Amino acid sequence: MNANMLRSAVHVSAIFAFYLATMMLIPGLVDLYYDNEDWKVFASSAAMIGGIAALVAVATRSSPPVVSTRFTFLVVNLLWLTFSAAAAVPFMFATIDISIADAFFEAVSGATASGSTVLTGLDTMPPGILLWRSMLQWIGGLGVIVLGLFILPFLKIGGASFFKIESSDRYDRPFARFSTYAYSVVGIYAALTLLCASLYAWSGMSGFDAINHAMTTMASGGFSTHDRSFAFFTNPWTHWVAIVFMIIAALPFTALILLALRARFDAFRDNQVLVFLGYTLFLAILLSMQLDISDTIEFREGFTKAVFTVVSIVTTTGYAVDNYMEWNTFTVALILMATVLGGCAGSTTGGIKATRWIVLFGIIKRSLETFIYPHAIRTVRSGSVSIPDQTQYVTMMYFGTFFMLAGIGTVLVAMTGADLVTAFSGALTALSNVGPGLGDVIGPTGTFGPLEDSAKWILAFGMLLGRLELFTVLVLLSPAFWRD
Amino acid sequence: MNANMLRSAVHVSAIFAFYLATMMLIPGLVDLYYDNEDWKVFASSAAMIGGIAALVAVATRSSPPVVSTRFTFLVVNLLWLTFSAAAAVPFMFATIDISIADAFFEAVSGATASGSTVLTGLDTMPPGILLWRSMLQWIGGLGVIVLGLFILPFLKIGGASFFKIESSDRYDRPFARFSTYAYSVVGIYAALTLLCASLYAWSGMSGFDAINHAMTTMASGGFSTHDRSFAFFTNPWTHWVAIVFMIIAALPFTALILLALRARFDAFRDNQVLVFLGYTLFLAILLSMQLDISDTIEFREGFTKAVFTVVSIVTTTGYAVDNYMEWNTFTVALILMATVLGGCAGSTTGGIKATRWIVLFGIIKRSLETFIYPHAIRTVRSGSVSIPDQTQYVTMMYFGTFFMLAGIGTVLVAMTGADLVTAFSGALTALSNVGPGLGDVIGPTGTFGPLEDSAKWILAFGMLLGRLELFTVLVLLSPAFWRD
Ligand SMILES: [K+]
Ligand SMILES: [K+]
Repeated sequence: MNANMLRSAVHVSAIFAFYLATMMLIPGLVDLYYDNEDWKVFASSAAMIGGIAALVAVATRSSPPVVSTRFTFLVVNLLWLTFSAAAAVPFMFATIDISIADAFFEAVSGATASGSTVLTGLDTMPPGILLWRSMLQWIGGLGVIVLGLFILPFLKIGGASFFKIESSDRYDRPFARFSTYAYSVVGIYAALTLLCASLYAWSGMSGFDAINHAMTTMASGGFSTHDRSFAFFTNPWTHWVAIVFMIIAALPFTALILLALRARFDAFRDNQVLVFLGYTLFLAILLSMQLDISDTIEFREGFTKAVFTVVSIVTTTGYAVDNYMEWNTFTVALILMATVLGGCAGSTTGGIKATRWIVLFGIIKRSLETFIYPHAIRTVRSGSVSIPDQTQYVTMMYFGTFFMLAGIGTVLVAMTGADLVTAFSGALTALSNVGPGLGDVIGPTGTFGPLEDSAKWILAFGMLLGRLELFTVLVLLSPAFWRD
Repeated sequence: MNANMLRSAVHVSAIFAFYLATMMLIPGLVDLYYDNEDWKVFASSAAMIGGIAALVAVATRSSPPVVSTRFTFLVVNLLWLTFSAAAAVPFMFATIDISIADAFFEAVSGATASGSTVLTGLDTMPPGILLWRSMLQWIGGLGVIVLGLFILPFLKIGGASFFKIESSDRYDRPFARFSTYAYSVVGIYAALTLLCASLYAWSGMSGFDAINHAMTTMASGGFSTHDRSFAFFTNPWTHWVAIVFMIIAALPFTALILLALRARFDAFRDNQVLVFLGYTLFLAILLSMQLDISDTIEFREGFTKAVFTVVSIVTTTGYAVDNYMEWNTFTVALILMATVLGGCAGSTTGGIKATRWIVLFGIIKRSLETFIYPHAIRTVRSGSVSIPDQTQYVTMMYFGTFFMLAGIGTVLVAMTGADLVTAFSGALTALSNVGPGLGDVIGPTGTFGPLEDSAKWILAFGMLLGRLELFTVLVLLSPAFWRD
């Protein structure tokens, strides 16, 4: 790590912060339009962050460094940290009047598209602050796609890199030039958001609600403009639009581009998509049957609620359509376990993701055979492609690290006085970027507001860890990273 | 899998069942001595099991098969299943009058040295049945040592095989002949049990209590002769004797042999021993400080209770010295996480074990460096020895499988109507063979009795899975295992 590398990373982050500051003008204008005092908060935040960012950007100008692995790790960490810190400023000074810990928690939850919130009274909150929350998730979601498609494969982290290799021949390198590819990612993401918003509006949402929820749906984010989340909307069509777009947002983005631009259905020949749809469907059917058999909810109503809840949790979106804490013990345990599943690599979802489950099951299946025939050659396959040793290794390590961090997180949050269900489900939901936890405090009807500030810092760090796929953050702990 | 292999495995299990039947005469004689009607139950159980076992053994006599990996897997599974089923018979017919699910659960908990119990009123229970429970754990514990030292390394399962390799040059192959080695294992195990019993008696336990608790201490079993477990004994010396012998029982047995027979302290140059003692000491200090700072228990009393509780959980013994559910949320979360730690490979402890934690941390440390320097050569070391790829691979897989099974177990137990804390801590305590769970039902002051029968079958299977280090059982699910 040399000074030039650090300076360049700060430079990149400052430029990003400058753009983010200009975007604060949008909720500012909305508040001005609705005649809300908060427009001053957004204007002054924009001026302050924009000014500091410009100064820092100029001060750190230098010849660009070689884009090494280390530089990329540094930039990614610094970008999300800057994003969260800058995004917290309007929360801190707005009329909602919350603590620094609350503001930072809410900003991290936005920037990482997690959707855990410390705020209540959303229904009567100024529109600017609500829009700002949704925008954070939308920008964060876009960042996650870029991270998954372009950066993590380069860093050789996670199952994504393997499926990138697998897909490279199948998707025929859809775009010859990187910039065309990058622009189409942004374009399709925006177009899908508009389509989702139109359908929400068609199903009866107000224009403002439709735009906000479309942004947080496509980001697998889960922030709502109502305390009751999707339980506020009574039209089943609204719920089914959400279900469809939560699933779309959980598919690999490259596949969405091919589908949208070339009407090619390659996604459905992708193993990870089939596995993701498979476990989502299985859990949805299981849950709706259980709700019916146990006489918890009548089947017609229960079916929509069960599918919505499973899709919302598995895709790590985190919208609530009902207080599932009151269903029964089985459904609560099922939802807890669904929290770690996740969608596809290269999507906006968090969690462990279908790719890693495929690798885990492949390894277990193959290894059981190896125990029986010790001299058999160990090849783990997904479809027709054999999974490289490095990918198997990193994937296995991910499981060990994920659950170890969940354990440490649980102990740390419990240390602040939270009960065991809050601490454990809080740690899991943070690492998976789902949003709500379980129990009375952070469950579907609660918020993270009542937690101690210390718990909020711990969980905010957990959300960043989870969003950057653990190792992107953990490498910073390695002395080798800082060596010259 | 051919018929001869299956027949031979049944033959071995029948011979074991015959020996177990003769051992039923011991609690029978004790009941006869104390003039308790249960002696008839033990006598008739012994006759029945012994008779059936002898018949089956004769019927399955054949030329011994080649000792293949597959045959070994089959025998190990069948042995523990036979052990549990035969051991359940006296429970079923004794005056305590419990269901088949209860009897099988209690027997599995004995045979796997887990220590979860469905029984209350231990203090006034006939001595025969109490002794039978302790004997099951003692025999089970011996089985676990034999499994860990001689069988799992051959099957290449778990971190143990690596540490076996590591230790082979350091311990200088202590015994030239296998049978000498095997006899000294039994001898030292019995001698340590007698020493432990003497010290318990010296500290004020009755002779009967001392013998029972010494057997379940050395087995890391945790069955007690009192509902209140070690909270029944008020002399701190009793608690410290337990602490010392729980730690001894968690050390690699080869090291104990060298210590006992040759006064060699090689164990303390073994990485896994240092790591095990390290995290035990760390958690004990952390817990006792927290109990003091939070004004939960006064320091002198709290120190003994904290050390006892940490040692009891980490070594997967499971004795309770206090109702730690009433301490505070941090201590409860800490105990939950300590549940999966475990002792050393080649000991009677369950859980994930120090060896696997060493491998996990080594892999994470090395991989973080590999992310930064992609072309560096990846060697994971423990001390001066590099850990073979195969061991790294199997260890990583163990973590993924362990937590996946814990998740599935939680959902299944919750499905029977148990609350989330009971379901999750129940699944973890079963897979780790610790014994007690958390909460009001299965916590330190409760029993597994109030659970549904279905939950008892699930958790009994979990105890067997955990005790046989998961893969020994899971290989049976592989079609390759049953192929001809
Ligand atoms: K989310
Ligand atoms: K135990």
